Amino acid sequence: MVRLDYLNLTYKEIGEVGLDIKDIEIFAKKAYEMMLKKPYKELDFLNLHNQDLLKIKQLSSKAKDYDYFIILGIGGSALGPKVILEALSPFHNLRRKPKVFVYDNVDPVTFKNIIEIVDLKRTLINVISKSGTTVETLASFLILWKMIRDKKLNVRQHFVFTTDPEKGSLRVLANEYGIPTLEIPKNIVGRYSVLSPVGVFLAEIIGTESESLLEGAKDISEKALNDDLSENSMAIFASCTYLMDTMKGRRILVFLPYSDRLKSLSEWFCQLWAESLGKEGKGPTPYPSLGTTDQHSQLQLWMEGPEDKVILFVCIENHNSQEEIPQEFHNIEGLKYLGGHTLSELINIEQLATEMALTMSKKPNFKLVIPRLNAYYLGQLFQFLQISTAMTGFLYNVNPFNQPGVELGKRLTYGAMGRRGFEEEAEKIKKYLRRKI
Amino acid sequence: MVRLDYLNLTYKEIGEVGLDIKDIEIFAKKAYEMMLKKPYKELDFLNLHNQDLLKIKQLSSKAKDYDYFIILGIGGSALGPKVILEALSPFHNLRRKPKVFVYDNVDPVTFKNIIEIVDLKRTLINVISKSGTTVETLASFLILWKMIRDKKLNVRQHFVFTTDPEKGSLRVLANEYGIPTLEIPKNIVGRYSVLSPVGVFLAEIIGTESESLLEGAKDISEKALNDDLSENSMAIFASCTYLMDTMKGRRILVFLPYSDRLKSLSEWFCQLWAESLGKEGKGPTPYPSLGTTDQHSQLQLWMEGPEDKVILFVCIENHNSQEEIPQEFHNIEGLKYLGGHTLSELINIEQLATEMALTMSKKPNFKLVIPRLNAYYLGQLFQFLQISTAMTGFLYNVNPFNQPGVELGKRLTYGAMGRRGFEEEAEKIKKYLRRKI
Repeated sequence: MVRLDYLNLTYKEIGEVGLDIKDIEIFAKKAYEMMLKKPYKELDFLNLHNQDLLKIKQLSSKAKDYDYFIILGIGGSALGPKVILEALSPFHNLRRKPKVFVYDNVDPVTFKNIIEIVDLKRTLINVISKSGTTVETLASFLILWKMIRDKKLNVRQHFVFTTDPEKGSLRVLANEYGIPTLEIPKNIVGRYSVLSPVGVFLAEIIGTESESLLEGAKDISEKALNDDLSENSMAIFASCTYLMDTMKGRRILVFLPYSDRLKSLSEWFCQLWAESLGKEGKGPTPYPSLGTTDQHSQLQLWMEGPEDKVILFVCIENHNSQEEIPQEFHNIEGLKYLGGHTLSELINIEQLATEMALTMSKKPNFKLVIPRLNAYYLGQLFQFLQISTAMTGFLYNVNPFNQPGVELGKRLTYGAMGRRGFEEEAEKIKKYLRRKI
Repeated sequence: MVRLDYLNLTYKEIGEVGLDIKDIEIFAKKAYEMMLKKPYKELDFLNLHNQDLLKIKQLSSKAKDYDYFIILGIGGSALGPKVILEALSPFHNLRRKPKVFVYDNVDPVTFKNIIEIVDLKRTLINVISKSGTTVETLASFLILWKMIRDKKLNVRQHFVFTTDPEKGSLRVLANEYGIPTLEIPKNIVGRYSVLSPVGVFLAEIIGTESESLLEGAKDISEKALNDDLSENSMAIFASCTYLMDTMKGRRILVFLPYSDRLKSLSEWFCQLWAESLGKEGKGPTPYPSLGTTDQHSQLQLWMEGPEDKVILFVCIENHNSQEEIPQEFHNIEGLKYLGGHTLSELINIEQLATEMALTMSKKPNFKLVIPRLNAYYLGQLFQFLQISTAMTGFLYNVNPFNQPGVELGKRLTYGAMGRRGFEEEAEKIKKYLRRKI
């Protein structure tokens, strides 16, 4: 089971900059009690382990016949699948088929490159948008739709839409053209959707048993409703991060996994945390990091910069690899001591050394530990972080499921693109472009 | 020429949260004057355009015969080459040879995967470490050294060392075994080394004319010593970021390029900035971001979270791609307005819309603009950001070229690895591991 160790956030270990364990428990209890009330329908993500996998399995088994698989999606519709791909099938495109591309931008050069690499005849395109209105996703969809039709290919055999069960442009088109679809359940919002067909479809395509992913999530979900705080470490997580910000002024939460395969998890977590909590003037900034790499990048700032950060380590106990460093060059002291250790030992030793260096310097840090990285424990990590984020939102007294702050930018984009009904925004843009310093 | 637009940081545009133009000019002048004194020998990176490229060109022309090219390095020895690869040859490994792997961690799974993919007989390994003592780099080097020898291959044909001209383990080995080497000039430190052989060798291998890269850097370097502030926008950059932190409490600097090809540049910049400025309790936190992607991730937090950020856009005027969104589905309003625009237009419109949304909400933001993304302008960006970072360090009155804060973690690693002379650290670790909550 994923394990939380928060000793290095406490007064006992780091003195005045640390938290009182009693305070941690008071707010953890509070977070737990709010969770018990299920205050938002969007908490349905807790039940995704009950979903019917039949259609996903049917479609994914067909997908395995293709050489290329393109996901069009952005934000929650892209980051979850990316984590699954990189965590469970690293270097996928150099080793396996179908090659997978997650196109989560409107970058014309990336688009052109992907098109040059794939053969559309052997390509399945998964368009993911809950609302079916996402500008970025629809733009690339329209281009690919036309390309498929221009090649006289059957759109039913080259597209799968993952979208709302009823609403949006993609649903309308699916009905009109008979495109196969997967449903994102009504109450599931983008950044809490990785365990819905958004992520599970890709998991199946790359050969992961998605039952394991969901089983991991289920085992965590059950604990979220446990009133024994020693079992409910999501409540502890929420309490610690909330108090570190509001009581101790630590406004940056560094997410630091020690595994290349979890680099994308950093980005996924940062979206989850930032969009869920960043509102009403509140919200600590989540920082995407990676060990050991960032020991040579950010560590200097964490050790000697402003006292505004909390470091969250994510550790894998067993890397399942025994690559040994040989004993060579006995005459060179700077090489000799490395011999006989494995890379697995070294990466975990470096994590420990960094954790100790921070603790000895009174820098708050805590860690999540999983025994191995596989589908089951990845499912646990996803669910642990999703529940913890929602609970932290309850403590901040914000709605962790909306994102009102992105609307203005969207409206201005519509205005600039000449969409009907956004003429006022178009005017504002014209005026803006005439400004001078 | 790279252009800085800082209007949206000023009082005129965003009111009280903005800066007075006079203050900007006073501190820019100060930054410029300190640069003029050349207070550190490490400023030699300003002269890297004068380096002799002959040996790099000889070695890289040989390297083109290999199918695989592995860089072993971490921090400044890896991030610069990564930027060059992704900016100038995106999707490189699916399209070109030699396939390039930058191994910048001690992750055993990544190592194993790379070894499975490459054929060592056809692999050139570039070991990059200025000091020649970097634990992570030497660990993987030792494994690969043994592998090459076990296969009875000639180490001289499979290794190139990029290291200090005189010191360190790599230099000793190079002399003993006759390994070809490239020199990182004496006064060049890791995070300011991208324009040295560290980055230039890879640039040549992937077919970039490194003269263009260096020409771009040269054209910027000349401006750093210009006393006309309208020409010396590095001084303006330093002044703005310094004042936004110290006068306005904006402690996070978000680096936001609108191009997938510049995603690695975000990471490179964050290392440069964090290690250069994060000391003596000072240093704004640099945040690695990417547009349009992060509009669906971080924008909510920027718009409605705490008032502690400044956003730096990095824009490409011309993406050199005319992929047009077709006019389809005239009956669906949510699709119709997209038709007839290009992806290049859309990505730039979204950048503008986000910039406007931030400005209208009084969130400080500024931007760097380049006309096109090629080697010449990438060279400009590198040098612009390196000079700006050093100048910002002058204003903070810190040494932007050292990193004393990472020593403790290194010593503890040595202790845990059983290196001679670090017995005290080993004891501390044993004691630490016995702790209980």
